[in-house]
Amino acid sequence: MSVAETLNDEALAETMTAIGQAARRAMADLGQAPRAVKDRALLAQAAAIRARASEILEANAQDMADARAAGLSAAMLDRLLLTAGRIEGMAGGIEAIAELPDPVGEEFASWTQPNGLRIARVRVPLGVIAVIYESRPNVTADAGALCLKSGNAAILRGGSESFRSSGAIHACLTAGLAEAGLPEAAIQRVPTRDRAAVGHMFQMPEHIDIIVPRGGKGLIERVQRESRVPVIAHLDGNCHVYVDGAASLETARAISLNAKMRRTGICGASETLLVDRAVADSHLPPLVRDLLEAGCEVRGDAAARAVDDRVVPVEAGDWDTEYLDKIIAVGLVDGVEGALAHIDSHGSHHTDCIVTEDGAAAERFLGAVDSAIVLLNASTQFADGGEFGMGAEIGISTNRLHARGPVGVEQLTSYKYVVRGDGQTRP
Amino acid sequence: MSVAETLNDEALAETMTAIGQAARRAMADLGQAPRAVKDRALLAQAAAIRARASEILEANAQDMADARAAGLSAAMLDRLLLTAGRIEGMAGGIEAIAELPDPVGEEFASWTQPNGLRIARVRVPLGVIAVIYESRPNVTADAGALCLKSGNAAILRGGSESFRSSGAIHACLTAGLAEAGLPEAAIQRVPTRDRAAVGHMFQMPEHIDIIVPRGGKGLIERVQRESRVPVIAHLDGNCHVYVDGAASLETARAISLNAKMRRTGICGASETLLVDRAVADSHLPPLVRDLLEAGCEVRGDAAARAVDDRVVPVEAGDWDTEYLDKIIAVGLVDGVEGALAHIDSHGSHHTDCIVTEDGAAAERFLGAVDSAIVLLNASTQFADGGEFGMGAEIGISTNRLHARGPVGVEQLTSYKYVVRGDGQTRP
Repeated sequence: MSVAETLNDEALAETMTAIGQAARRAMADLGQAPRAVKDRALLAQAAAIRARASEILEANAQDMADARAAGLSAAMLDRLLLTAGRIEGMAGGIEAIAELPDPVGEEFASWTQPNGLRIARVRVPLGVIAVIYESRPNVTADAGALCLKSGNAAILRGGSESFRSSGAIHACLTAGLAEAGLPEAAIQRVPTRDRAAVGHMFQMPEHIDIIVPRGGKGLIERVQRESRVPVIAHLDGNCHVYVDGAASLETARAISLNAKMRRTGICGASETLLVDRAVADSHLPPLVRDLLEAGCEVRGDAAARAVDDRVVPVEAGDWDTEYLDKIIAVGLVDGVEGALAHIDSHGSHHTDCIVTEDGAAAERFLGAVDSAIVLLNASTQFADGGEFGMGAEIGISTNRLHARGPVGVEQLTSYKYVVRGDGQTRP
Repeated sequence: MSVAETLNDEALAETMTAIGQAARRAMADLGQAPRAVKDRALLAQAAAIRARASEILEANAQDMADARAAGLSAAMLDRLLLTAGRIEGMAGGIEAIAELPDPVGEEFASWTQPNGLRIARVRVPLGVIAVIYESRPNVTADAGALCLKSGNAAILRGGSESFRSSGAIHACLTAGLAEAGLPEAAIQRVPTRDRAAVGHMFQMPEHIDIIVPRGGKGLIERVQRESRVPVIAHLDGNCHVYVDGAASLETARAISLNAKMRRTGICGASETLLVDRAVADSHLPPLVRDLLEAGCEVRGDAAARAVDDRVVPVEAGDWDTEYLDKIIAVGLVDGVEGALAHIDSHGSHHTDCIVTEDGAAAERFLGAVDSAIVLLNASTQFADGGEFGMGAEIGISTNRLHARGPVGVEQLTSYKYVVRGDGQTRP
């Protein structure tokens, strides 16, 4: 990298403005680029990542050495680490994005008015997308490729601890753009470790159409609080599984265990298990024991504690906590209405599930729970763009505006109305 | 009205919080309300407006007297004035909204994954919509009815000069809600003339999901600058008609004149006419003369001035001005690419038109112009939800996120994913 790693205030402001302007200029070419050109760039990027794997690993080794010296946690170090396998994963991920259909130009609704005007809603890119992420350098590749496929100019701002790794990956993305004849400014990277750069991005609505933060709660809260640019993000994934009185016990056990324990660190992992009081005797004991035996800490109400001595008392705050860990809150509720009231009070509008064989209870729950994803008889861990058949995603949104749920290439687009007439004037 | 017209700071803050909380509570009932119940409320509202016409006119007479005493302009007074005809227009408008299909609950995409999960995208209301408007009291009826039809709770904040008129109309809306058994808080009105109330709305993202400002540029700029709540709005409608070298002169004349002169005060009125240099001799003179003869002031470049002595010189700022008046800027450009460059520099991403018989030129223009609405051989004055077949609209959006173009009941919704399984767990 020939760029300065830190800049003074004035130089930073100038750099950020220049990045924003270059992104706007690149946006026009990118929005009109045919699928074949974008895919050629993506495949060249994947090839460059494979070809330059040793450079990427070397840059990562320097980042890792600094991070160890700075005393970063083992979890942070693991997120920062790149391996040959992870590099191959990045390249393969980009190739998979190349295979997705191009959302841009799709005419997804059209009709003819009585006066003969033919009106079509046509997908267009959003424009310029800024992605702010933390330690994982591979987000550089994912986010850059998703923005490129959807015809958006990208401004990437990775964590300062992954500065060199992200730089090496970004160089591969730029090389791929050049091979396809696309402007290099189509995917830019903020070329400084300065945290103040992020503050500038929040104040650039004239250059940035949307910010996608990918990181911990602190980052997302800051973006939502400070940004003048619209944000697509989810703050919490406090997901519920409700086992209804009409649930099959076998289905309930499989879903409850999978929703909590398959992977505890993802946003679709369940954090609360609610059981209908009507089946407290038959369903609650096996559900609680399954979790305990899988190594999960169970924080329960009186009924759950009565099942097993290992269940600890649930505190009021537990119902609102996204543990992202082997911990779950468990309690009884009075049927579907009790579950709805609980989720309405404590949920985070992300992903919630009902297990039941009763169609009326299912429809009541699916209709009334105000979450991005509501599931019947399926694990909350399916909250994922790939599992939804959308290909790669840049995140899950709990926004109500624009994109809700998994954000894939289609959700990174806007639309315009194309109206074709033959001389119509308005009376 | 039994409410205080002005409140001290503390009372205002309390009032606004109470309104926000009541709206959130009403939202749940409203989101689940079946179409028949919402339509019953709408028809009762229309009936109440007709039945109470004399009360509404009396309230309006008081507002008008105050407005005259305060020296409001004739244009402002006209916007404020209600007549028997305008009251019937409000009632009829609400009935037309009742007839629109209910967007809520529509499954607008669905598919089945290989593992058997059935995934559907289902429209849901946005939640709580705040509408901030200026002098026209009839917006109370339009906005309230559009929000109700789309299942959203509404918080209406009209201009202080229309306070009594809006109050009388709002009482009819509330009566209609009560008749249908819907919560009265489904459509609330800020019960004070205090301008500070608007500032509170900007800072209530926990209670308001979106703000729709309807008014002049000053209002919209303020909302866009200050609001922490997302905004759907358009700032400028600097619309262009480009007459290409391959345009039919007859078509060009009809569209150019209609786009400018049919109504000059609406956002879809054209403000700039661009003519391909290739047809300067044949097309420019009749186009310019048509406008002059219709009473339009023409501000032209050298070529346009050469047509007629009445053409005045165009200044640099004219190309960026939304006149909303009988004034137009006219100039030559070098073909489609020249038109694109001009619109890219000066346009406001609202509505732009090409007149041409050349398919390639048309597709280049329609693809490359980055506006909410692009038209081929049709007047820019068609930029309207009704003309698009969407029924009533709450405005035209130049946002790139969520809704772009006319904002009707469908655009006032979000969606959620409803996933139906039979016990699937994620491997």
